[in-house]
Order: sequence, then C-alpha cells, then structure tokens
Amino acid sequence: MNDNSSSIQKLINAFTLLPGVGLKTAERYAYKVISLSSDEVEFFANSLLKAKQNTKFCSVCGTFTDKHTCDICMKRNSKILCVVKEPKDVVALEKARNFNALYHVLHGTISPLENKGPNDIRIKELITRINENKFDEVIMATNPDVEGEVTANYIAKLLTPLGIKVTRIAQGIQMGSDLQYADEVTLSKALEDRKVMN
Amino acid sequence: MNDNSSSIQKLINAFTLLPGVGLKTAERYAYKVISLSSDEVEFFANSLLKAKQNTKFCSVCGTFTDKHTCDICMKRNSKILCVVKEPKDVVALEKARNFNALYHVLHGTISPLENKGPNDIRIKELITRINENKFDEVIMATNPDVEGEVTANYIAKLLTPLGIKVTRIAQGIQMGSDLQYADEVTLSKALEDRKVMN
Repeated sequence: MNDNSSSIQKLINAFTLLPGVGLKTAERYAYKVISLSSDEVEFFANSLLKAKQNTKFCSVCGTFTDKHTCDICMKRNSKILCVVKEPKDVVALEKARNFNALYHVLHGTISPLENKGPNDIRIKELITRINENKFDEVIMATNPDVEGEVTANYIAKLLTPLGIKVTRIAQGIQMGSDLQYADEVTLSKALEDRKVMN
Repeated sequence: MNDNSSSIQKLINAFTLLPGVGLKTAERYAYKVISLSSDEVEFFANSLLKAKQNTKFCSVCGTFTDKHTCDICMKRNSKILCVVKEPKDVVALEKARNFNALYHVLHGTISPLENKGPNDIRIKELITRINENKFDEVIMATNPDVEGEVTANYIAKLLTPLGIKVTRIAQGIQMGSDLQYADEVTLSKALEDRKVMN
C-alpha cells in the first residue's frame, strides 16, 4: 500500500518464517530490529547464517553439534543410553538435574500416518551402537504420544532379547500441576503406575 | 553445559534480542532456522541487514522509508495532516479504510518522566510544515495515554491560535468488544462523548 513493501516489509515477511509468528508479531520484531544497533543486527544476521552453516548432526548420537562428534559423546562416560526423537529433546533432558546419560537421537518416530517405518529413523544405528558398546540400560525417552509409544515398544522388543535392560520414562501427573486439570489418560496412567511409599 | 554453547546457542541468544522472546521461544525459533533451507536462512539474514542499513526516516513526515522522501509524501495529495507518535503508527493507520491523510511522525511524546520536552520531539518540524503548506485539518492521533494526551493538548494549543482546525481521534468502546470488559476510564469517556443517533 505504500513503500513499506520495502526493506522493512521484506524483514516482516522473513520473520513469518518462524513458528507461530503472524503478521502482528513479525511487525513488532521488525520494528525492534530497526531500533537495535548495527552491531546487534550484524550479530543477529551472522548467527543465523553460522547456525545454518555450522550445525551438523553428531556422527555418534545424532544431536546438533558444530563438530564431527558432539561434546557429550566425546567427554561423557556412561553405561546408560537415553533414546529420544529429536535433537531438541537432548537439550531438554540436559536440563534435568543429576542425569548424565549418553543419548541416541532417532530423528523421528515410527508413524504410519507420515509413512515412516523403522527403517526411516536411526534404529539400525542404535543397534550397531549397542552391539559395539556395553550399556547397562537403555531409557526410551520418546514422547508419550501414540508414535512415541509405538516406537518405544518396537525398540524394546528388539533389545530385550539381546539381554539389555530397557526402561521407559515415567508417565503421570506433572510436577507442580493440579489434579483437577490433568486429562483422564494421564490420571489413569498415574493411578496404574502408583508406587509404594516408604 | 554441552556444545550447545555453539552456533545454535549463539542464535538462541540472538533471538532473545526480540521483544517478548524468552529462552523457550528463542530455542523454538532457532530449531526452526536449522530446518529451513539455506536459501531461506540467507533471505532472512539479508533482510535483517538490509532493513537496518536501508531504513531511513522520511525527510518530510519522519516515517520509515528506503528513500529520501516516502511514497505517501511523494504521491498523496491531502489537506489533512495526521500527527502520530511513531512510524509504526503510520503503518497501523494505513490499514484503516478510506483514510488518505498525510502524516507527521513526532518520534516520541512529551514525557516528563523520560525527561522529554516539546523540543525533543518533532514539533518544530510540524509547525514549519504547517506554515509552508495549507492544511484544512490536523488530526492528533497520539495514543490515548497520559503522554499522548499531554502532547495532543500541547500541540492543539500551539495550532488553534493559527486558525487551524485541530481534532483528536475518538476514544471509546473498542469495536467488537464487550462492555463488561471495558475499563472504567474508557466507559466514562464513551458516555461523555456519546453521539446523537440519526
């Protein structure tokens, strides 16, 4: 409608590439960028390019890294292997206290709807890794949704015959939440998996 | 904690420069960037740099433009001048239907708290512009907050003695909203400024 179909308008369009960012939010972001210092905007633009260029997947576990093998795989010594769906799950789990496992990122889950079978995710690599290293336990930390459950069960069925202890992360009421707002599936699961208190 | 203090971590930090973006949102944005194509990321980074480099303020009205004088000032013919606080207000008003005024961006409002007086915003430029061009009406479209009101009143007192018709945008109940959620100041204003229905 006016010359906002210009540099700013292009930047607004660029921001809508981000998840959950509509026109209003994109405008707010763009106006903010104009008010940042040139150094900050250059840092921002460089960060975008560098993150895209440098970020690879770790050759061992498959998580994000700038190197051939990620720091966790290089430096950590653990007999516990935690299997997750995506690299960002590794970041989330690393925030849990006192957890020092190694990871294996599947890069997806078995999902018939998306036409994804066991061969489309990194299960073969998982088996190879388990055969080459001795793990005491494999924790299935895929999401507690249908695909995550199916994938966890599929992998458990592959590994249990090999004599490996396979566990699943606990499902139940969220810490700090309120019973009345929990959905019925979560409540059923929480009751079913109840623990003896000592 | 691991090698996420790397390219991705830098990108996450960069995203927190944006207004209202915390760590969680920044992470979501960064992961999305990794999954975009290289072309898209390059477009994004270029848009940032270009918007910062090219965006200037129009020499006449003071809004965002890539040129010396913005398209509205160059092409539009109007005897109505609409005074706003910031360039983004121009973008917002341009979305209103059947509104074809010229604009004057003050780049701020009179605000004793922020130590901003009449000389710190573009009031002198407004007076010069009004003296050099014949306007039928000056619409004060600063925000309906304390600073916006003070600024509108200050400018009205300057212009009215010059024989210029100065108006203020209407304040009242928001279109499509619900009376019960309106604050009492808005309700008082809406009642005070009630109009005869024909």
